[in-house]
Amino acid sequence: MNWKLAARAEKMNPSVLREILKVTERPGIISLAGGLPSPKAFPINAFAEACAEVLHKDGQAALQYGASEGYTPLREAVAAMLPWPVDPAQVLITTGSQQGLDLVAKVLLDPGSRVLVETPTYLGALQAFSPMEPEPVSVASDNEGVVVDDMVAKAQDARFIYLLPNFQNPTGRTMTEERRAAVSAAAAKAGLPIVEDNPYGELWFDSAPALPLTARNPDGCIYLGSFSKVLAPGLRLGFMVAPKAIFPKLLQAKQAADLHSPSFNQRMVHEVMKDGFLSRHVPTIRALYKRQCEAMVAALQREMKGLSVEFVKPAGGMFLWVRLPEGIDTVALLPKAVERGVAFVPGAPFYAGQGDPRTLRLSFVTASVDEIDTAIAALAEVVREQLAHHMAAEVQRQLAASPA
Amino acid sequence: MNWKLAARAEKMNPSVLREILKVTERPGIISLAGGLPSPKAFPINAFAEACAEVLHKDGQAALQYGASEGYTPLREAVAAMLPWPVDPAQVLITTGSQQGLDLVAKVLLDPGSRVLVETPTYLGALQAFSPMEPEPVSVASDNEGVVVDDMVAKAQDARFIYLLPNFQNPTGRTMTEERRAAVSAAAAKAGLPIVEDNPYGELWFDSAPALPLTARNPDGCIYLGSFSKVLAPGLRLGFMVAPKAIFPKLLQAKQAADLHSPSFNQRMVHEVMKDGFLSRHVPTIRALYKRQCEAMVAALQREMKGLSVEFVKPAGGMFLWVRLPEGIDTVALLPKAVERGVAFVPGAPFYAGQGDPRTLRLSFVTASVDEIDTAIAALAEVVREQLAHHMAAEVQRQLAASPA
Repeated sequence: MNWKLAARAEKMNPSVLREILKVTERPGIISLAGGLPSPKAFPINAFAEACAEVLHKDGQAALQYGASEGYTPLREAVAAMLPWPVDPAQVLITTGSQQGLDLVAKVLLDPGSRVLVETPTYLGALQAFSPMEPEPVSVASDNEGVVVDDMVAKAQDARFIYLLPNFQNPTGRTMTEERRAAVSAAAAKAGLPIVEDNPYGELWFDSAPALPLTARNPDGCIYLGSFSKVLAPGLRLGFMVAPKAIFPKLLQAKQAADLHSPSFNQRMVHEVMKDGFLSRHVPTIRALYKRQCEAMVAALQREMKGLSVEFVKPAGGMFLWVRLPEGIDTVALLPKAVERGVAFVPGAPFYAGQGDPRTLRLSFVTASVDEIDTAIAALAEVVREQLAHHMAAEVQRQLAASPA
Repeated sequence: MNWKLAARAEKMNPSVLREILKVTERPGIISLAGGLPSPKAFPINAFAEACAEVLHKDGQAALQYGASEGYTPLREAVAAMLPWPVDPAQVLITTGSQQGLDLVAKVLLDPGSRVLVETPTYLGALQAFSPMEPEPVSVASDNEGVVVDDMVAKAQDARFIYLLPNFQNPTGRTMTEERRAAVSAAAAKAGLPIVEDNPYGELWFDSAPALPLTARNPDGCIYLGSFSKVLAPGLRLGFMVAPKAIFPKLLQAKQAADLHSPSFNQRMVHEVMKDGFLSRHVPTIRALYKRQCEAMVAALQREMKGLSVEFVKPAGGMFLWVRLPEGIDTVALLPKAVERGVAFVPGAPFYAGQGDPRTLRLSFVTASVDEIDTAIAALAEVVREQLAHHMAAEVQRQLAASPA
């Protein structure tokens, strides 16, 4: 049978993360790899009550087809909870914020279109953009976010820049107020649209991050949000806020993609959020993740002592980004770590361009404090071993290269 | 701000159906337009029990991220319920079967790729394929389905033919056993892959339709199924069965599109379907729809008497396709019908090529028997009026054209 693949499908490669996550499902492995929110934080009872209430009160509508835009009361609730004036007519409910990335790509990217991304950036965004065959361009980034001069230098003909300013996946870094102001002004001046992804913004530890980029220039930005981290990912609900100029196109792409997101789930989430539930629930998640993050930072400081390991303590979110000493390749390190019962994600796949082989991403939210301690100790042991191998090989190489 | 649209987005037009459905939401309108299953048939109590059970028994997993392939027990249940040997590893759970069409398009269609469709075909499929910018080619079709010779004549370089053999949307027609055998053999001989869409197959009135095309040549077909018509559309769950040769590409496209379909909904549906629920529930839907279809057929025969109106009585499904007398354009007719309190969908948008302006689609599943009677009577009245106008205009035209 002549199954001829589209050119974009020929280029698709199995996701590195996917294959890794399969390995980490083996029993006995402590996974610091996945971006899975802690199931301890899922409000199961609140959902059970909401399900019963929605089916009792509004069962027929909850089980019927709905509008592609989403359930109106949920769109209104989203608009009301955002920290700048948002018309509910600009809110599109999506099947997770991952779908928002798919729709943005369909509406804004032609083959070869330049799309600017951070260094490194969210791997799922690269995957979502990839079927539209754009050319991702890596913009230099430091601990405060994307570097403005490099962004401006690369802005010409770019369709947009994709930014994740709060507790970024994978680096955990947060864009400072000063950097936001500068990025927003420079992007507006260059006519460069911003796609702002904010799945983790509510997961701050000590103080809320600065105002979103979109709040500073709503007509120049598409904002993506998610219920996955403040409620539960298994409902697959996110949202996007888009300028009126392009909303209709995103809506049409949404309709073609899956008609609409589940009516039932939208009503469940709306029901759960009533009466300020999130303002009581989210602080419990923040406290849990803060505790686990501190445990991981302490474990890294304790176990990696004497190794030149670099990391920045995150101010929120789910991830900690680590750079291991010279000579370590984290892709090669992973199978050794898995043998010792610990999994992580190598950093290289998160780069649009050449990746840094010494980097890796650790999640501090899924494993318990005890598991974190055990896992980081095991990881440090593997790193020391690999380093010893590397140095032995280096000595051998130098001996071999020296005159006989 | 420089929002530059992708070429595919420039071409997107608001869905005709969408705009019509908005009008029909006005109170007092009897809508025969939408493809909404009867909410009377939704098993609300069974869902309420399933929600409670899933959250109680398996709440953390139901609310967590899941595998892109879908929930394993649901994939196994799908494989087991299909009438040919299916390996659960070939089943991909999708966010409604609409998403299956989006994934097929991403994996198999390049800009300009020829994709064969029936005349007329499902509008939602044309919309799902459209972002990949293929060239849809209309294959001649009669009351038994697609015409084999025309399919073969157009098969060269086509990526696939999209077929909806059971109670087709929009025509309600069903492909006969003889036609299926011929289509299957001819497609295999021509090396033409088939994408078989079967959302309505279970909704037969008197006897089940013939075996799916996919059952006859599993390696040459992708099969799309849905839970929307046998359970409820508001959960947005469908599935696809794909040959092992292309399954990995579809899976990658799925992961990029929305990571996975809602874990919670997949468990709910699996829970509801246990213990043979569908074999008790679906017969009640069949009986309801059969009764309403018969009422609509009787109303059409009664009210349209003397008009040369053509339609074929469906053997199942949700839709009845009507061809009105010469001189009627159903797009122009619609606003007049809405004024009289009845809505339908004009047939023209369902054609990949030139549409037949005399056709329209009626749904017999959402409105009650009384509403169907009222609506068809009103529709007949509007048709008679339009016909009178048309004939008066025709007489005027002939008088004006005759020698003075």
